Amino acid sequence: MEEKVTLIFGHKNPDTDSICSSLVMEDLEKKLGNINCKAVRTGKINNETKYVFDYLNLKDIEFIEDVEDNQPVILIDHNEASQCVNNISNAKILKVIDHHTMNFKAPYQLYYRAEPVGCTATVLYKLYKENNFEISPQIATLALSAIISDTLLFKSPTCTKEDVDVCNALAKIAGIDVNTYGLEMLKAGTDLSEFTAEELINIDSKEFVEENFKFQIAQVNTACIDDVLKSKDEIESAMNNFMKENGTNLFILLITDIINSNSQAIVLGDTSVFEKAFNKKVENNMAFLEGVVSRKKQVAPVILNVL
Amino acid sequence: MEEKVTLIFGHKNPDTDSICSSLVMEDLEKKLGNINCKAVRTGKINNETKYVFDYLNLKDIEFIEDVEDNQPVILIDHNEASQCVNNISNAKILKVIDHHTMNFKAPYQLYYRAEPVGCTATVLYKLYKENNFEISPQIATLALSAIISDTLLFKSPTCTKEDVDVCNALAKIAGIDVNTYGLEMLKAGTDLSEFTAEELINIDSKEFVEENFKFQIAQVNTACIDDVLKSKDEIESAMNNFMKENGTNLFILLITDIINSNSQAIVLGDTSVFEKAFNKKVENNMAFLEGVVSRKKQVAPVILNVL
Repeated sequence: MEEKVTLIFGHKNPDTDSICSSLVMEDLEKKLGNINCKAVRTGKINNETKYVFDYLNLKDIEFIEDVEDNQPVILIDHNEASQCVNNISNAKILKVIDHHTMNFKAPYQLYYRAEPVGCTATVLYKLYKENNFEISPQIATLALSAIISDTLLFKSPTCTKEDVDVCNALAKIAGIDVNTYGLEMLKAGTDLSEFTAEELINIDSKEFVEENFKFQIAQVNTACIDDVLKSKDEIESAMNNFMKENGTNLFILLITDIINSNSQAIVLGDTSVFEKAFNKKVENNMAFLEGVVSRKKQVAPVILNVL
Repeated sequence: MEEKVTLIFGHKNPDTDSICSSLVMEDLEKKLGNINCKAVRTGKINNETKYVFDYLNLKDIEFIEDVEDNQPVILIDHNEASQCVNNISNAKILKVIDHHTMNFKAPYQLYYRAEPVGCTATVLYKLYKENNFEISPQIATLALSAIISDTLLFKSPTCTKEDVDVCNALAKIAGIDVNTYGLEMLKAGTDLSEFTAEELINIDSKEFVEENFKFQIAQVNTACIDDVLKSKDEIESAMNNFMKENGTNLFILLITDIINSNSQAIVLGDTSVFEKAFNKKVENNMAFLEGVVSRKKQVAPVILNVL
């Protein structure tokens, strides 16, 4: 009987950490002896990640929509079933490497490693060190790209000293100037010109479920909020359609200015939850969140706290 | 403002792993720089653990019933709220070190480390190694006692090669002969003579909740099953009282013969779930489970699978 390949993947609507850390984990897992494994993706690669792939001359990785029964998998950069492939409960989760809040169940033992840092790749770096494995320049570039992306080049409040130190150590291996490379990479991610409104709200979108309340927080990075707001009507219409189709109670789109570190939020649905959470009125479906750049640290827990 | 002490503790009805690994974690956590921490217990120390404490001339540790609001805590050897102090949702969980199936939620980031091994202490040993910390003979003795207890001296199907290797490495540090010490320790744990039936079903008892089905699996180790069954009537009456008080749907008491590695189960409540899970009739409230010694690996998941 042929043994099933272990699939390694991040959350739906994958960001650079989800994609790059899956590739890093494939390398690590092979070094650990599980050579029958591969990184795959559960959604479209965004423009920021595309910049990294182009920089490294990497080919695209395989897309999967769901997993087979008893498929061995390793979850990267997420743990909640609602952010995973639809039939994840059929899979056999071997490992989870993550850095998010937790909502996880498994009726069997597994390897679970999460740390309160800014990026999954920072945890992966520590696993290389603990095992005395060498890190190649390509793996270092993937890992540091993930850290730059998740920490918005160290500007996000999710960024820890460990993320900075690890990123700088990786930069030495990769021979990369973090600031120059990082700004180029982040800028590539803000090019939203080719996206329809439907695509835009799905670039980096996560569903959360608390009791029976379902809320969605999407985020796009930009160098100019007003540019994005030119399509406000189409975006709201796409958000409304999404909510109808998915039974979403509240949809928050964060349009994050990565230069000035603020976010304009478009809020639809049960806005009272948002208003209570941020003690702020939603006017014309919008609220400006000063200093807010992190969904994980500054938005999701604030909403969860109210619910 | 005085900073709150970090409390380190295992599950309710603590076994040797829960107690000894909490003490090991206190040592590790202090070495990691968090000197304001202490191991406490959430239940009575059993006779097996008492043997370890006597061997090391250790004083008893503090008992806690619940935690204060925002109390920083480290959970050892468990992760499910139902097995933890009652008001754990008020606490701030900094870390979890465990080796069980998972059912865990936290609306904030934390350090979570679980591995599919037979004992929490095996994971802790790796943390010492990863951090290049020395292990003292006393800490080694606590850790190896936990491994011997959880693996029934390597006989349990939960035991992995890693548990054996780590236990043997610890034995060298502690200057202990694993077999001689281990048998003495396990034998000390089988002395049930001083327990009332109420106490006996609480020595090592865990609650599981799946959807709205609440089931309890208690386990006692013995060198002679028939000895324990002499009090079958009193035990059943204690189990029935417990179920009434706690709204338990199914109660399984495993009386485990540590010499021959079998278990006699007393099963009360919704026995059909048990019968379906094990494809075995419950007669006279009993079923003999050949080769079954592990609640975690051979009983809990089998029940969960049916539910």
